Amino acid sequence: MTFSLDPRLAADTYHLGNLPLCRVLLMNDARYPWVILVPRKPDLREFIDLDAATRHILMDEIALVSQAVQASVRPTKLNVAALGNVVAQLHIHIVARFEGDEAWPGPVWGKGERRPYDADAAQKLNLDLSRALNLV
Amino acid sequence: MTFSLDPRLAADTYHLGNLPLCRVLLMNDARYPWVILVPRKPDLREFIDLDAATRHILMDEIALVSQAVQASVRPTKLNVAALGNVVAQLHIHIVARFEGDEAWPGPVWGKGERRPYDADAAQKLNLDLSRALNLV
Repeated sequence: MTFSLDPRLAADTYHLGNLPLCRVLLMNDARYPWVILVPRKPDLREFIDLDAATRHILMDEIALVSQAVQASVRPTKLNVAALGNVVAQLHIHIVARFEGDEAWPGPVWGKGERRPYDADAAQKLNLDLSRALNLV
Repeated sequence: MTFSLDPRLAADTYHLGNLPLCRVLLMNDARYPWVILVPRKPDLREFIDLDAATRHILMDEIALVSQAVQASVRPTKLNVAALGNVVAQLHIHIVARFEGDEAWPGPVWGKGERRPYDADAAQKLNLDLSRALNLV
């Protein structure tokens, strides 16, 4: 089996690039700077479906993205989560939260409607993050 | 500075014990089997406040708890998250989710009212998890 991205994740995101383990996606939601990491291996649902060494690589990539997001947008708080109740394919959310954002202090999932970026804003954030992650 | 547990985390949980890095807490909410890990170091807010080696230990402990919870209650899905919008002290939620539980498929945070365990149920779950984690 080869890796393939769940079409629901593909539909709502921009593809930023690949890290050694994960596909890096930017959620197309202008309300929150929101990156999603998807380990590029088939049939994953939980962290514990990965072996210990690969979980460490995943943690390294979560940290790399967290540092890039923090440096780019200086959020109040990062939210890092692997939920998967709707899309079961293992994916990790890294969301920059700001005091007073639409869902603050609650979680972002299932709250209100996604607001797509306008093209210029998406391009700028894509470029900033891709550079910060050395993806370009 | 020494580690001290945020009093809001202490108030809502049972203390299960310690792993090498983390305090292990059981959320006193009978709606969901819900463990919280708190790294026992002062002044932590984000994963990236830990160095890379300690983040790997944290991931190992997340996996250990995830495996114990999965073996104990066989959930539909594990939810693993570090949010911290309300209590900023770094803490990691590991929540066993079941199709049809009160918040399903949404997130558990900020949804409805916590329902404390009755004493027998709490004691049994405490004991099961403590044994599974080799805390007793």
